[in-house]
Amino acid sequence: MSTYSAPLNDMHFVLRELAGIEQVAKLPGYEEASPDTVDAILEEAGKFASGALSPINGSGDHEGAKWHDSNVTMPQGFKEAYRQFIENGWNGIGCEPEFGGQGMPKVVVAAVQEMWKASNMAFSLCPLLTTGAIEAITLNGSPGLKATYLPKMIEGSWTGTMNLTEPQAGSDLSLVRSRAVPQGDGSYRIFGQKIFITYGEHDMTENIIHLVLARTPDAPEGVKGISLFVVPKFLPNADGTPGQRNDARCVSIEHKLGIHASPTCVMAFGDNGGAIGYLVGKENEGLKYMFVMMNAARFAVGLEGVAIADRAYQRALEYAKERIQGRDLADGSGPVPIIRHPDIRRMLMLMKSQAEAMRALAYVVAAAHDAAAHHPDGEERKRNQAFVDLMIPVVKGWSTETGIEVASLGVQIHGGMGFIEETGAAQYLRDARITTIYEGTTGIQANDLIGRKIAREGGATIKAVIGIMKQVEAALARQPGEDFAAIHAGFSRGIQALAEAATYIATNFSQDIKGVHVGAVPFLRLMGIVSGGWQMARAALVAQAKIAAGDGDPYYPTKIATTRFYADHVLSQASGLAQTVIKGGAGALAVAEEHL
Amino acid sequence: MSTYSAPLNDMHFVLRELAGIEQVAKLPGYEEASPDTVDAILEEAGKFASGALSPINGSGDHEGAKWHDSNVTMPQGFKEAYRQFIENGWNGIGCEPEFGGQGMPKVVVAAVQEMWKASNMAFSLCPLLTTGAIEAITLNGSPGLKATYLPKMIEGSWTGTMNLTEPQAGSDLSLVRSRAVPQGDGSYRIFGQKIFITYGEHDMTENIIHLVLARTPDAPEGVKGISLFVVPKFLPNADGTPGQRNDARCVSIEHKLGIHASPTCVMAFGDNGGAIGYLVGKENEGLKYMFVMMNAARFAVGLEGVAIADRAYQRALEYAKERIQGRDLADGSGPVPIIRHPDIRRMLMLMKSQAEAMRALAYVVAAAHDAAAHHPDGEERKRNQAFVDLMIPVVKGWSTETGIEVASLGVQIHGGMGFIEETGAAQYLRDARITTIYEGTTGIQANDLIGRKIAREGGATIKAVIGIMKQVEAALARQPGEDFAAIHAGFSRGIQALAEAATYIATNFSQDIKGVHVGAVPFLRLMGIVSGGWQMARAALVAQAKIAAGDGDPYYPTKIATTRFYADHVLSQASGLAQTVIKGGAGALAVAEEHL
Repeated sequence: MSTYSAPLNDMHFVLRELAGIEQVAKLPGYEEASPDTVDAILEEAGKFASGALSPINGSGDHEGAKWHDSNVTMPQGFKEAYRQFIENGWNGIGCEPEFGGQGMPKVVVAAVQEMWKASNMAFSLCPLLTTGAIEAITLNGSPGLKATYLPKMIEGSWTGTMNLTEPQAGSDLSLVRSRAVPQGDGSYRIFGQKIFITYGEHDMTENIIHLVLARTPDAPEGVKGISLFVVPKFLPNADGTPGQRNDARCVSIEHKLGIHASPTCVMAFGDNGGAIGYLVGKENEGLKYMFVMMNAARFAVGLEGVAIADRAYQRALEYAKERIQGRDLADGSGPVPIIRHPDIRRMLMLMKSQAEAMRALAYVVAAAHDAAAHHPDGEERKRNQAFVDLMIPVVKGWSTETGIEVASLGVQIHGGMGFIEETGAAQYLRDARITTIYEGTTGIQANDLIGRKIAREGGATIKAVIGIMKQVEAALARQPGEDFAAIHAGFSRGIQALAEAATYIATNFSQDIKGVHVGAVPFLRLMGIVSGGWQMARAALVAQAKIAAGDGDPYYPTKIATTRFYADHVLSQASGLAQTVIKGGAGALAVAEEHL
Repeated sequence: MSTYSAPLNDMHFVLRELAGIEQVAKLPGYEEASPDTVDAILEEAGKFASGALSPINGSGDHEGAKWHDSNVTMPQGFKEAYRQFIENGWNGIGCEPEFGGQGMPKVVVAAVQEMWKASNMAFSLCPLLTTGAIEAITLNGSPGLKATYLPKMIEGSWTGTMNLTEPQAGSDLSLVRSRAVPQGDGSYRIFGQKIFITYGEHDMTENIIHLVLARTPDAPEGVKGISLFVVPKFLPNADGTPGQRNDARCVSIEHKLGIHASPTCVMAFGDNGGAIGYLVGKENEGLKYMFVMMNAARFAVGLEGVAIADRAYQRALEYAKERIQGRDLADGSGPVPIIRHPDIRRMLMLMKSQAEAMRALAYVVAAAHDAAAHHPDGEERKRNQAFVDLMIPVVKGWSTETGIEVASLGVQIHGGMGFIEETGAAQYLRDARITTIYEGTTGIQANDLIGRKIAREGGATIKAVIGIMKQVEAALARQPGEDFAAIHAGFSRGIQALAEAATYIATNFSQDIKGVHVGAVPFLRLMGIVSGGWQMARAALVAQAKIAAGDGDPYYPTKIATTRFYADHVLSQASGLAQTVIKGGAGALAVAEEHL
């Protein structure tokens, strides 16, 4: 069996050299994130991921969560792993210290979360949803709601859920129909059905806190009439213990392609008189609150792409070193381990280089998020927030699309064994397949990117980012050797392609709204590839400086070679994608629907 | 529930206008393939696929084949469907009339097989393997073997299998260890274990004929010492009925990612004294015979890619027209069917255009196979055979890789529902995932393509094919209008990229064998994309001529728009792929194994 091993080397390098963890630790409120603390956190998290989560990943997939009579039984080992998880204090590491959290910066939390996701994506969804619910209550809840719910949720003894989707309203929340009827005592009665509710029911904790979107009786139509409610499974007693069972029940769970251990619930609210709920913030502001949570959730799902890619790479690498088959192409020796075959090599490098590029971009965005939240200078906060807003759909869309491809390469490297479920490689592909769908499909991310994040501001932020990329391009040009020549050539073409495509979008968005939107996903992909290349190029420059300073760690030449591979095999796609963005609108829309 | 509907319009168009079915019908031996007969065959096959195979595709996946005590029980409905399948005479439509086959040309058989594969890939594997076994016996078996086995197998009342793989020998047949001990009476006793044996056991027929690779006692090492044997499950009596049970048993079946209804068997030969087998052809020539079957099987697996792509497209299109969500981007009306959203459109067109390009290329290759086999002119036979040999790895590798991507797009179009197994979209992705692995992985196809099919002859055949493509390019340049300008531009760049990459490979193959092989799969992909573009361009030219001649069938403008889409969204990848082929070798091989 393959056990997950946290890529601590690369994580430390990215945190230190690319994401600037030392600068983050100087921000007010993050003083606790000293190098020693962060090192200790990552090391312990790695041990927990390998020792507690990785061993139940395959068995959890095989067994799956089981529904019976409104209850959900988790696969063997999950309850115990969760108990350890919260006992070790992992649940609240990114939460406010005021309510028991550790207040670690997002960039540190990102590295830790990557480990949970890589070792056991199905498990990791439970704390992920709880974190989202905590954030919504922290930002918008009344002092009473905070006092009642946050300590338990941050500790992890109560978990949280997000109830948005209804059968008739997938990604379009304007169609939400669930009702919230005020009771005159400050509480509401909630009625409605929600679907796709992750960890809507389970047996790991004594209570579950549902955050539910619903409409009050006089609410306006559409998204302006949606309010957010806290609906606990058990209504808390005055002493904080779970009391009366609320009218919120899991009526079934889905039979899914992947993440079998994560119960995806159909939730019925109010089938027996109404589920008691408490308003979060103000009426009709629910969507705004949800958007805040959604940004965090989108980033986190992007990290799932990074994580699955790395996990699939680790397993494929192990297999490629062990599996003996075929002869060495150059000298005819053998049979040899399949890692000697150039195409297996190519696939491994494609997995490795993209996983590293995605990790680097995600952590850099997380660090910018920390600066946007905590920097003392308002201008810096604003600049960082604009960068985060621009990049969230890229981290989400690109990392998840690439994560699926990388997981599929992992299957391919295993050959026939990859198709056999016992091998474990196929699980990553099945698990990864949801990541481009939930928390907004890639299409939705891409529309957000080209619309709200580029066209609306005339491309100002992306132009600034391209400007920074060009400084890196100039630094690459000053490095000696073939590797840097190749990296420079690939990155230069990538920047040019990105700039052309971005200009095209900003210029034509209003005149040809549908044609431009045809290119949204190709553009997102282009931007992901080039942004990942930017971070890899920065990494290669640091590596080169380390080597020049006499550092003999083989990590550095490996990083340069990996970057070169990325330039030749991934950045090479940039020009074609730009062409598709710029020219591909008309052909896509020409055929009448009835002739498709 | 979505029911498969054979794409008869496109099939007829490709057969008539691109694959030249009328010319094929003029070849000696194919006179039966008159337009009326072919029309009738396709229509009836379409009805059988929709009526008998499509309805048991989802249930067969859900139920799966079940192993018990050396026996395999097929999912409900499979036995009855198979009975109808052979009663209707479908099993032998491509086989020799001498033994009861209909002797239809491969190009017709390809269209029919596409329907079986699209409506029920798991079912289709049974006749596919039988066909391979029939071919091996037809080409190399003794008159006695032919008389005993061919009539039953062609009729379909006995099925066939191919037993190549052993646990220690996946794609590397030099490692085969199964033994064949001559008994002095002309028969052999076979001992050994084989894995991944498709339909190695099932309950649909009274007998199963295994073709088994094994070594005789004095056989040389490696692939030159492999012989091929017929090993029936039941030894035929003198009257042709199945007699004594042979010592060949299914000891387990695999739990797989997809094709759950197709039993993938571990076969034990000779656990109780030896399985009685009969030599096919000569000793030590087994690999040669297998290669003939493998070419046919590789083509057939390529067709699986075409078929799954089309099936996934049909289902996604249906869903995209029905599912109401979101507003029209241009006029704000709605909620609208999601097909109105540009990104859904883009994905549907990506599915449609690639399915059509792959179908066209596959049928054209099938027609060339017919000419290679039946053309009266020896030069024509040779020329066609060279084209077929060049293109088999492309049809196999490109169509299957693309088939997986298209199936994944189908899941994406379904959004959250795509991840729910009951929807059915995920099954295509799971089923398709094996196609890039079995019958030789994409890496193996690509190595075959650049080595045996290009470098060995200095690129002669591919240069000739590029010459023919250039004639099409010139014809495109003469067409008026924006669509053809875009098609011409995309195809021109594609040809140029292909020519550059092919020249690079032919030139550098020997000096830099590993570096060139790093580019093998990117080159295969490039060649697939450009070859598909070539067929789409031919199709667009025919469509344009029909329109000019006053034909008002909307199929024709749709084909032109689809080709334009393909040029902007698929052919646009060609230059980047060529760059990867030409420059990507060094970076892939630079990192020492222990630092990966």
